[in-house]
Amino acid sequence: MSILIKNINEIYTGEELIKEGWIAIEGNRITGLGKKNTDPDKSKFTHVLEARDQIALPGLYNLHTHAAMTLLRGYADDLPLQQWLEEKIWPQEAKLESEEIYWGTKLAILEMISTGTTAFMDMYFQMDHVATAVEESGIRAVLSEGLIEANDGEEGLLKSLEFCKRWQGKARGRIRTMLGPHAPYTCSREYLIKIGELARANNLSLHIHIAETRKEYEDFLNTYGSTPVQYLDSFGFFENRVLAAHCVYLDEKDMEIFAENDVNVAYNPGSNMKLGSGIAPVNEMLKRGINVGFGTDGTASNNNLDLIEEARMGSYLQKVNNCLPTALGLDDILKMLTINGAKALGLEDAGRIKEGYLADLVLVNIKESSYYYPHHNNLSNLFYAGNGRDVDTVIIDGSLVYKNKEFLTMDVEEIYYQVEKLRNKLFA
Amino acid sequence: MSILIKNINEIYTGEELIKEGWIAIEGNRITGLGKKNTDPDKSKFTHVLEARDQIALPGLYNLHTHAAMTLLRGYADDLPLQQWLEEKIWPQEAKLESEEIYWGTKLAILEMISTGTTAFMDMYFQMDHVATAVEESGIRAVLSEGLIEANDGEEGLLKSLEFCKRWQGKARGRIRTMLGPHAPYTCSREYLIKIGELARANNLSLHIHIAETRKEYEDFLNTYGSTPVQYLDSFGFFENRVLAAHCVYLDEKDMEIFAENDVNVAYNPGSNMKLGSGIAPVNEMLKRGINVGFGTDGTASNNNLDLIEEARMGSYLQKVNNCLPTALGLDDILKMLTINGAKALGLEDAGRIKEGYLADLVLVNIKESSYYYPHHNNLSNLFYAGNGRDVDTVIIDGSLVYKNKEFLTMDVEEIYYQVEKLRNKLFA
Repeated sequence: MSILIKNINEIYTGEELIKEGWIAIEGNRITGLGKKNTDPDKSKFTHVLEARDQIALPGLYNLHTHAAMTLLRGYADDLPLQQWLEEKIWPQEAKLESEEIYWGTKLAILEMISTGTTAFMDMYFQMDHVATAVEESGIRAVLSEGLIEANDGEEGLLKSLEFCKRWQGKARGRIRTMLGPHAPYTCSREYLIKIGELARANNLSLHIHIAETRKEYEDFLNTYGSTPVQYLDSFGFFENRVLAAHCVYLDEKDMEIFAENDVNVAYNPGSNMKLGSGIAPVNEMLKRGINVGFGTDGTASNNNLDLIEEARMGSYLQKVNNCLPTALGLDDILKMLTINGAKALGLEDAGRIKEGYLADLVLVNIKESSYYYPHHNNLSNLFYAGNGRDVDTVIIDGSLVYKNKEFLTMDVEEIYYQVEKLRNKLFA
Repeated sequence: MSILIKNINEIYTGEELIKEGWIAIEGNRITGLGKKNTDPDKSKFTHVLEARDQIALPGLYNLHTHAAMTLLRGYADDLPLQQWLEEKIWPQEAKLESEEIYWGTKLAILEMISTGTTAFMDMYFQMDHVATAVEESGIRAVLSEGLIEANDGEEGLLKSLEFCKRWQGKARGRIRTMLGPHAPYTCSREYLIKIGELARANNLSLHIHIAETRKEYEDFLNTYGSTPVQYLDSFGFFENRVLAAHCVYLDEKDMEIFAENDVNVAYNPGSNMKLGSGIAPVNEMLKRGINVGFGTDGTASNNNLDLIEEARMGSYLQKVNNCLPTALGLDDILKMLTINGAKALGLEDAGRIKEGYLADLVLVNIKESSYYYPHHNNLSNLFYAGNGRDVDTVIIDGSLVYKNKEFLTMDVEEIYYQVEKLRNKLFA
């Protein structure tokens, strides 16, 4: 497939804004871009898109979710965290089998693609079914099995390593894998050391939840006399490449450790707010040069996968928490969603619209919705007024997967039908 | 016009959920509702709507906005409040003339109707043009001229009173008016007393901004030795019927004053967050029985008018601020958006789907978007995952104004055209 996108109203490349431009894609790479009247001959492309009413931006990267949990969207809200987990979420998760994982993930991918997400970091279980859903749908993903020592132990770890090896680089490179120790409170020091050794021996990164709640933070202070981050650092955990989710409770020294060790952070404002967990010190982390992007977490605690809304909520939350309207401005959230996201996922040459970069990009219509009037600033209108519903067309790894709001790789009706069938089976 | 809505998937009446039901409307009132197989004869109605894939809920009430400010959406973001106002907003507002007010308000109304808002409280200037836009569009509104003593003085106050008298009850009752002293820091004690006297003499309520920023709060403590609320209370301001916007900085005694005097509060989480103002103690106010609803504020500081998103953000903000996932749950936000909103706007027999109540209601499609799958809880899916874009049909004062996402009373293309023309004129 080769694609020429012509007459684009505005291109946000990640570095600059190009008014009236074009983008050329061959294979899975961006092969050129420029201003009007410098376009290449359109006859050389298999697909030509007219984008007069659209802006183009790099695809958005979701750094933390549990895709299959969409099956539990709206099943239980407004409950205290432990009651929510113990009485509602865990008993239901225990019932999920291959079919549920597969169709739940498909529903999540449908929603992610249609709201402009071109890659996501997943942590769940029975990950082969997640990988299959990713492979079939055309989205890009980095997949990790969530390892809880009491459930998985040594055997689960080795199985998870096999999963990583089996799927690493599959789907023509769209799928990558990480090892996923669930959290410092569900994995012992020895287990985490073992996971780290296997990760380094196999050139794998780690995905983990850290310091999500005040309870976790205080438990570590009480038990180990140190913060979760300093506890992990004490046995060299951050010698691994780490993508840490949440990181709500961090002290100054924790942030120094993150900065020194190039730890990547997934900020999940929607989930942290809805569960009453707390507010991650993202403004402080960015000042220290820590690489932070956005995650949605699962839809049982969000309850959607729209990164545009997530970024708005996350920006506004930092502004109000710091009583600082300049905090996490438009430039920051754009960077976090794209180039920071690519870096956190270990994707090289991604997160920008630039020659040679991965062709993961999104077109948004700025003429159809009131959110884009007046046209003072299209990107402001998208991120501060609009939402994922404004996404019109999505290209992932050089392939059109969503065009003029139609899915090209997924059967929407079939997914809705299967999801409802499973709900009736599980929850009736 | 008489309308029968049949086969509704689910009706949220404000008091209960009716599965598979119908609603009958005659004139501007709801004349009946019930379960399947009890519907009246459809031949008696001028309009019959099939709503098999839809849920019905009362229309949403926006308790604080500056509609015409949509012309400034995206014009300036991420700036410190004083710089934002002094360098960006006020100089532009000074240029707004009748045409700008009219078309800016039309754009806002378009957005409000299409996202499920059936009435709004506005405070701006040149309000006759706002009233004309309201009258033509079919929405319900309560309108107030924002009175700043230094600009308006006695003469402006009398003009504003004339405006109130001229439009009170117009558009077959859809338009109501209030006097709108802008804030305690822009109106002197004497001016506020005078406004209160005129309000009571003319049976008008008051709309005012109170304690929006920490600066305002501290200035009052420094100058008068009391909070803004206690300062206002000291000269009997709350003997009037008051709808107070923002109320971010309140102490215990302030909340007691609000509770004792039945002060209505407009919670504006999006704007308070984006401007870095602070977090209103809504959870505390609700516990004390204070009537609180949602406002969006203007789109220059929000940047949209979607009350569904506003309620989600406002709910999550209370949860995180109180580290309490039970705060502002789904039941609370539904009540705040509907029955509390009606009360704050002084609308009797409104805010519920109930026989004899005003026919302001909204239908939302739950089959078209991934946000509604699986169907564990349609209202949760709407308020915690969906957004205003899911609104399919809107009835205001018994009239269909928006049907299957088409506007019946507004010319969308004309509004977009005029707004862009004005942007080019003002900001080029």
